[in-house]
Amino acid sequence: MTKLREDDDLRDEEQTGFIKPTDMTLRPVGLIKNRIDELSLVAGGAGLEMRGELDATMEQVREVRQAISEIVIDETLTGILDGIEEYSHLVVLYWAHKVPEEGRSLVKVHPMGRKDIPEVGIFSTCSPARPNPVLTTVVRLCGLRGNVLEVAGLDAVDGSPVVDIKPYVKDSYPKDGVTVPDWMERLQNEVRGRGRRDG
Amino acid sequence: MTKLREDDDLRDEEQTGFIKPTDMTLRPVGLIKNRIDELSLVAGGAGLEMRGELDATMEQVREVRQAISEIVIDETLTGILDGIEEYSHLVVLYWAHKVPEEGRSLVKVHPMGRKDIPEVGIFSTCSPARPNPVLTTVVRLCGLRGNVLEVAGLDAVDGSPVVDIKPYVKDSYPKDGVTVPDWMERLQNEVRGRGRRDG
Repeated sequence: MTKLREDDDLRDEEQTGFIKPTDMTLRPVGLIKNRIDELSLVAGGAGLEMRGELDATMEQVREVRQAISEIVIDETLTGILDGIEEYSHLVVLYWAHKVPEEGRSLVKVHPMGRKDIPEVGIFSTCSPARPNPVLTTVVRLCGLRGNVLEVAGLDAVDGSPVVDIKPYVKDSYPKDGVTVPDWMERLQNEVRGRGRRDG
Repeated sequence: MTKLREDDDLRDEEQTGFIKPTDMTLRPVGLIKNRIDELSLVAGGAGLEMRGELDATMEQVREVRQAISEIVIDETLTGILDGIEEYSHLVVLYWAHKVPEEGRSLVKVHPMGRKDIPEVGIFSTCSPARPNPVLTTVVRLCGLRGNVLEVAGLDAVDGSPVVDIKPYVKDSYPKDGVTVPDWMERLQNEVRGRGRRDG
């Protein structure tokens, strides 16, 4: 039975401070295999940098979103994929292994490396350079062969370690009343190919 | 510029095997504070167990989904939340710190501890007991006070370490053509309070 405390007071900081962090070590459960060697956006100590020109970059972002990847699950985890073929979509959690150690201490960046957008905090962005570079993508499941998942739309580079695979259950993702900042709306429109609107 | 290899062949297993896993250590970036001491579903070495009766459990799952939690972000990460108040919803990644070590080696469970549903692989379930117990929930942002986010709908227990906060951008979550197994559909209906349909 879920236990809710009777009192309305949340625990005070002393009890739940950063004193004894739990040991949090990830174990690779698989590996991503695709033809993407490098992403357009490169995370470094200084922030994000976009390689190449804007239009070409956006075109490549779209291309990557359609590409097929293989997710090879550790063969020793026999049975862990049982029933997965009944889902049309999955959430893949993976480790951005190409983010250098110094990229994990960034706190603010220009979104997508765009100097025309003011810097915001990392938690307001989808930057791969973040304190814990665990990235998530919803993919379409195209096939399953033994311990290999074939998926479409995985925005990850070849060789990324897989952290977790979860079912995509759309009820858990609200559709109504969702708002994002203007700059994010604009970036999304550009990726969709609806042209660039400066301002 | 995104580099796609010219050849159509994906890298062979030898090159991308499990030989040299990247060191993947998470650092707590914050802590979840709420009144939830224990969840209805308890992960153990033997699988998931539901505490209490079904109807009461489902009621509590609904209750938890509405509850307000605080996410206290590490004060040393000054600026990392800048701009976050412009989002209505966020994705919270947290560590299921109450999952015992042996719970990380489970490969199959009865979904939600329900013996009337056949066992499936962990990756087909939302079980907190998984090789890497990083859980994700989309929450509604209700308020921001300094380094404290006030959110609704965070399905986590008090004291859970926070791994990451990401913007919720609904374009990344497909709405059409999404299917889930029948048992998952049925569980979702039960949580919504549309009654239990055995079968």
